[in-house]
Amino acid sequence: MTSQYRVNYHLRAHKRDSLIEFIKGMLLTPFVLHSQPTNAQTHVTENAQRFSEIFSSIEHLIQEHRSFTRQGIPTYSRLAKLVPSIGTFFTPLPLQQAFERVNAQDKISARKHVPPSFNDVRRILNMAQAMAIAPQLKLVTFDGDMTLYADGQNFEEDHGLTALLISLLRRGINVAIVTAAGYGDDAKRYEHRLSGLLAGFGKARLEAEEAARFFVLGGECNFLFRTVIQQGNRYGLEYVSDAEYSASGLRSWTDSQVQQLLDVAETELRDCVERMAISAEILRKPRAVGLVPQAQLTREQLDECALSSQLALLKYQGSPKSQPCDVPIPFCAFNGGNDCWVDIGNKLIGVRILQDMLDSPPEATLHVGDQFLSTGNDLSTRTACCTCWIINPEETERILTELEKMF
Amino acid sequence: MTSQYRVNYHLRAHKRDSLIEFIKGMLLTPFVLHSQPTNAQTHVTENAQRFSEIFSSIEHLIQEHRSFTRQGIPTYSRLAKLVPSIGTFFTPLPLQQAFERVNAQDKISARKHVPPSFNDVRRILNMAQAMAIAPQLKLVTFDGDMTLYADGQNFEEDHGLTALLISLLRRGINVAIVTAAGYGDDAKRYEHRLSGLLAGFGKARLEAEEAARFFVLGGECNFLFRTVIQQGNRYGLEYVSDAEYSASGLRSWTDSQVQQLLDVAETELRDCVERMAISAEILRKPRAVGLVPQAQLTREQLDECALSSQLALLKYQGSPKSQPCDVPIPFCAFNGGNDCWVDIGNKLIGVRILQDMLDSPPEATLHVGDQFLSTGNDLSTRTACCTCWIINPEETERILTELEKMF
Amino acid sequence: MTSQYRVNYHLRAHKRDSLIEFIKGMLLTPFVLHSQPTNAQTHVTENAQRFSEIFSSIEHLIQEHRSFTRQGIPTYSRLAKLVPSIGTFFTPLPLQQAFERVNAQDKISARKHVPPSFNDVRRILNMAQAMAIAPQLKLVTFDGDMTLYADGQNFEEDHGLTALLISLLRRGINVAIVTAAGYGDDAKRYEHRLSGLLAGFGKARLEAEEAARFFVLGGECNFLFRTVIQQGNRYGLEYVSDAEYSASGLRSWTDSQVQQLLDVAETELRDCVERMAISAEILRKPRAVGLVPQAQLTREQLDECALSSQLALLKYQGSPKSQPCDVPIPFCAFNGGNDCWVDIGNKLIGVRILQDMLDSPPEATLHVGDQFLSTGNDLSTRTACCTCWIINPEETERILTELEKMF
Amino acid sequence: MTSQYRVNYHLRAHKRDSLIEFIKGMLLTPFVLHSQPTNAQTHVTENAQRFSEIFSSIEHLIQEHRSFTRQGIPTYSRLAKLVPSIGTFFTPLPLQQAFERVNAQDKISARKHVPPSFNDVRRILNMAQAMAIAPQLKLVTFDGDMTLYADGQNFEEDHGLTALLISLLRRGINVAIVTAAGYGDDAKRYEHRLSGLLAGFGKARLEAEEAARFFVLGGECNFLFRTVIQQGNRYGLEYVSDAEYSASGLRSWTDSQVQQLLDVAETELRDCVERMAISAEILRKPRAVGLVPQAQLTREQLDECALSSQLALLKYQGSPKSQPCDVPIPFCAFNGGNDCWVDIGNKLIGVRILQDMLDSPPEATLHVGDQFLSTGNDLSTRTACCTCWIINPEETERILTELEKMF
Repeated sequence: MTSQYRVNYHLRAHKRDSLIEFIKGMLLTPFVLHSQPTNAQTHVTENAQRFSEIFSSIEHLIQEHRSFTRQGIPTYSRLAKLVPSIGTFFTPLPLQQAFERVNAQDKISARKHVPPSFNDVRRILNMAQAMAIAPQLKLVTFDGDMTLYADGQNFEEDHGLTALLISLLRRGINVAIVTAAGYGDDAKRYEHRLSGLLAGFGKARLEAEEAARFFVLGGECNFLFRTVIQQGNRYGLEYVSDAEYSASGLRSWTDSQVQQLLDVAETELRDCVERMAISAEILRKPRAVGLVPQAQLTREQLDECALSSQLALLKYQGSPKSQPCDVPIPFCAFNGGNDCWVDIGNKLIGVRILQDMLDSPPEATLHVGDQFLSTGNDLSTRTACCTCWIINPEETERILTELEKMF
Repeated sequence: MTSQYRVNYHLRAHKRDSLIEFIKGMLLTPFVLHSQPTNAQTHVTENAQRFSEIFSSIEHLIQEHRSFTRQGIPTYSRLAKLVPSIGTFFTPLPLQQAFERVNAQDKISARKHVPPSFNDVRRILNMAQAMAIAPQLKLVTFDGDMTLYADGQNFEEDHGLTALLISLLRRGINVAIVTAAGYGDDAKRYEHRLSGLLAGFGKARLEAEEAARFFVLGGECNFLFRTVIQQGNRYGLEYVSDAEYSASGLRSWTDSQVQQLLDVAETELRDCVERMAISAEILRKPRAVGLVPQAQLTREQLDECALSSQLALLKYQGSPKSQPCDVPIPFCAFNGGNDCWVDIGNKLIGVRILQDMLDSPPEATLHVGDQFLSTGNDLSTRTACCTCWIINPEETERILTELEKMF
Repeated sequence: MTSQYRVNYHLRAHKRDSLIEFIKGMLLTPFVLHSQPTNAQTHVTENAQRFSEIFSSIEHLIQEHRSFTRQGIPTYSRLAKLVPSIGTFFTPLPLQQAFERVNAQDKISARKHVPPSFNDVRRILNMAQAMAIAPQLKLVTFDGDMTLYADGQNFEEDHGLTALLISLLRRGINVAIVTAAGYGDDAKRYEHRLSGLLAGFGKARLEAEEAARFFVLGGECNFLFRTVIQQGNRYGLEYVSDAEYSASGLRSWTDSQVQQLLDVAETELRDCVERMAISAEILRKPRAVGLVPQAQLTREQLDECALSSQLALLKYQGSPKSQPCDVPIPFCAFNGGNDCWVDIGNKLIGVRILQDMLDSPPEATLHVGDQFLSTGNDLSTRTACCTCWIINPEETERILTELEKMF
Repeated sequence: MTSQYRVNYHLRAHKRDSLIEFIKGMLLTPFVLHSQPTNAQTHVTENAQRFSEIFSSIEHLIQEHRSFTRQGIPTYSRLAKLVPSIGTFFTPLPLQQAFERVNAQDKISARKHVPPSFNDVRRILNMAQAMAIAPQLKLVTFDGDMTLYADGQNFEEDHGLTALLISLLRRGINVAIVTAAGYGDDAKRYEHRLSGLLAGFGKARLEAEEAARFFVLGGECNFLFRTVIQQGNRYGLEYVSDAEYSASGLRSWTDSQVQQLLDVAETELRDCVERMAISAEILRKPRAVGLVPQAQLTREQLDECALSSQLALLKYQGSPKSQPCDVPIPFCAFNGGNDCWVDIGNKLIGVRILQDMLDSPPEATLHVGDQFLSTGNDLSTRTACCTCWIINPEETERILTELEKMF
């Protein structure tokens, strides 16, 4: 009986996050048993107490999982049995305190009819991660679109985020934007998209040393820029050539191997276009291939394109026909909201390059992004560092504001 | 996504009990969060404490539901929202105490890998019901096969149950067997099946007044017998004619109406035989029709027969073609384990006849049986009285032994 | 095991539509078994064939359900067993043809990785409903916000919908906007919101008779306006007093009864404000009470407000304390996106008033709206007429464009 | 929302078989859409046709999975995506033909109310496996209790199975009983349990060469016996010393390593006894440790013991404290129905020893047993050979009878 359901689950797992779903499920029992009190105020307090205990228990499950991970047997932890797809936690997560902090604002425990939701739990996890990483933070990386600015837009001047990012830089924390947007070594185009922020640096008269802590890494992990003060006191971006930093271990693929992979992806995307009779252009770039539709596609169609090319590349890399290289070439096939791209390299590599360069270990690195579902390009960073999953620039601002209080 | 699952649920609801499943679900959260302790003994105690609190909460949900029921708006209770098919509770259920009593024996809270199961919860509900009804108990009714004796077997002499039943009678509590077995007014055949018990009455030298508290009601609700001391000090059964008790309000159907209904059932059973190419005899009795197979059928086949005839009769009674009578004729289509029967009348009527005759209200009446799934013939009693759901004669003995301690 | 899941389902049923979920589930089997072909083109065709057969089967289930409904035993239909909350279908639904039409555009059957989704099925149901009702259409009612214009916005001039609505009026079909927005008998404010449309009527030189087929019903069902050509050839709205149309049977409540109900709702909304420490104003109107927050609330908070007041009113009306009136007073507690309102009366009454006045039976009346979840105010219309569930004005335009082709 | 459900699933996965559940789910769609026909006979045929197509599709999924397995990328097959825990299929499975054969007997497609069940699908899989392996069968291994005889009983004389086993031996097929029962090298005790079968060999005057194809492997994989004709023409068992066959690669563990492991298991079982306050004896044997209760335990308690010791051993072997040996020592912790045992070695090793000795590859070897859940000791054989999952000796007889027809 249960199987159809699980099949369904597997088909849609790309739209779920197992840990969040697990926590939501755990919170359901106190919600169901206690949500409808006679005395409102006592109830809110008691309910908060019960939720708080559950977060404390999950905090312990995560501690135990970290301990099993250190022993080399992560799959035997209780948490791994309950959430088999669970990954690595680079810090402990003070979930109980985080819940209390979020609940003080959002009054989750005061609801009688609407149980703790996905978004409630996501925000609590973000808060806990911020609390855990604040004392040792060395590097924060951000996705671009939907994380720092609206989709396809530029970073506006006088945005609330500007001051928060400047504050991080002044504290000696490195900040980087790690974005899919790939314009090669063309600093101008990245400067254009970030003009508001760079102008903010100017207004704030950021010192050269501080500004130099701000990086842009485009094409997921392919094109690195650092901030420099140019003549006329203009803050701009400067391309950093591959030779200047040691990405060799991380990006050791030849162009011929890359083109092979892009050929496979392109064939698959063209098949999608034909199958679904989509009006779209296939754009081929040096390290990416994309499907850009003439008219807005449905989410279903874009997911189909991303999942199709993902699977085609996995099969190709798994099959004996594939021309092997020293390391398998990482890639990223993702639904970009209005388009679908297959990028060579991914943000995991991107974050690692920055970590190596800036000597920031996983437990001191935080990636903030909005694409953590399986067709999203932020997901891969989870293997390399701590993460916050936000859904719009307002949430990015909120989490940075909280961070600010914790230093 | 969830729908396929729910469809499946609806198709199989006849194999589930919603309240038990609900309670099981609630117990899962503490089990998951706390089941694997370092210190065994502390853990067992703490876990028991957590389960105990949950049973206390469910106890309150039931109280609230009873209060809403008294106000005439049962569907607005919290429990009704959570378990929409929930029925009426004729007594409160001291679930917390009951859990503690059962857990002291079965150590449910000591398990780390196997969560509280359907059978655990069923036994706790039985215990709670026994505790609640003990002070005011006036009438206990029992199913026969699988409840007092093995399927198709007779009540053995020197069975542990004999002393327990005698004890009930001596306390002034009425005892009745309410069984599907329909032999018309033929007392001998019922005496044969109960020979061990009747012999026990003799050995115990039960007084006439005490023996007279023991009844048999055959054919679900059709043929009533009382116990008498016959010559030679033999304890036997005596048919009670319909005129001697007021079943008119409950069994006001004419033979022609009954035969119409049985015709519909017979047609459906014959269709089952043909469809599934079963070798079986269709037996027609005055108030029943049955399918008795030559070889053992699978559970699936017998359920199919029961559900088919159930639906056929419901449709017939609902359709305008049906010849209406003052009250709709109750019936019972059930999987008998090795056969399938459609009986006119049901145990709901059976229990009500006894309640009227013996002046026992729902909250003082307890029905003990093993067939509480939707293809079982004990289910209908839930509308009329308190119930205990056992799965074999050993459990009947266990629950009566507990009851004995509570008087 | 399954129970927790069902509890969860019940708690969230307000975010689901059971028929759509059921259909999605049925489509999963062919999707799973056949979605990954070697030959793309054959596959698309074969897959479409399989989906098509499933829609044909569901079409038959709906026919059977309609036939059982006519016989007065709707709960015995197969569909009612599979989707217990199923309602009434006022027309057959040509689902197979509708699927083929939608699939020709959206190529659902060409997807290998993303199964038919909620939105796919919703659009197919809309198409089928449009096809079924086109030949006999007499009245189309529209929700306002999100259906004809963006939330809180006005109807823009030169909107693509203008021509489509004018075309309906010219065909002799009555058109009405049935909206929660309640400004009493103040025609100016409604005119302001619809200024773009009324200007369009002017540009098109709609004749008086044609314009008179366009109505606005505000406050769900409380304030009726008709279109008139005013001096200067300006198209405007004119309040229709209650006396001019027979709403007596439908709106037979006294002001004292209304105020009682609004008092209950207001108390509950104030409790929400206090419990959740929301900064919000409670606005009391003659036939409504609303909670208007100072800052954007989360969807969870607004749903909590709607469900809380809904339940409080149901309990109040169910309890013996309630002062009974001839008919129970219908109300509508809904999440308005940015606020939460409890309106006296609902769109069910609204649509019925128009049906009576314009002599349009359920099978000739179509309501188009975006709020069909249980905290939405379009849901109640399902009892009175056929419906199309759209999610933005673009979909309204699409479905009217399709309708246009069907006349 | 879905997570609680999945947690539940993981906690209970030991009571499920994913492939069977998957197939059941797939069959639900035609069942739901077509199960209630007007014309019975046409319906049965059409329904059978639809089920048959689904089995054909699953047959293709399995073929594709086998092809991906041969390419070394089994996890990329469609079946692996749908049933992630799927293993290896050593032969194709002619599911369509098997369904038709089983359906001819059980008329699954004639049921309108009871969908295809776990047992229906299990029998179809068994049939398909028998059909696939019949032409090349070289070795059949059987579990003992519940497979060849009732639990704890002996093989009765004149059992229907005797003739069927003799027939296999006469065809040149090797037959072995691979059982948990461990009596060291004491042939007498095994002879006692199999006395009925050995007597049957005598009656049938089996030739020495034929009898020599019959083996017993006790203690899962530890004590091997072959059949010999002893003086007085008595058929008996003869211990085969380890030196006589090459189990070195498979059983390369030292006694000290074994005792370490048994110590861990014993500690855990003693902890179970204490935690659950069970009255039980802990029995230590050379290569096993068992918990034998004084009174019947519940299934939940025995599962708890099996899962507890399973996990303790896995953790021990995974942890750095464990004294490593060349190969990890296989073990088997299982619920024996009335007791719980931890055996060193398992039936996977048992079957492999016989395969090596008799030169029978996986695709020519069939293991028949009743314990294929995760607390059962037949499960491990799935890695080594084809399997049939029966639930009682009658089903073993049925499947051998079918096999007989296929040679």
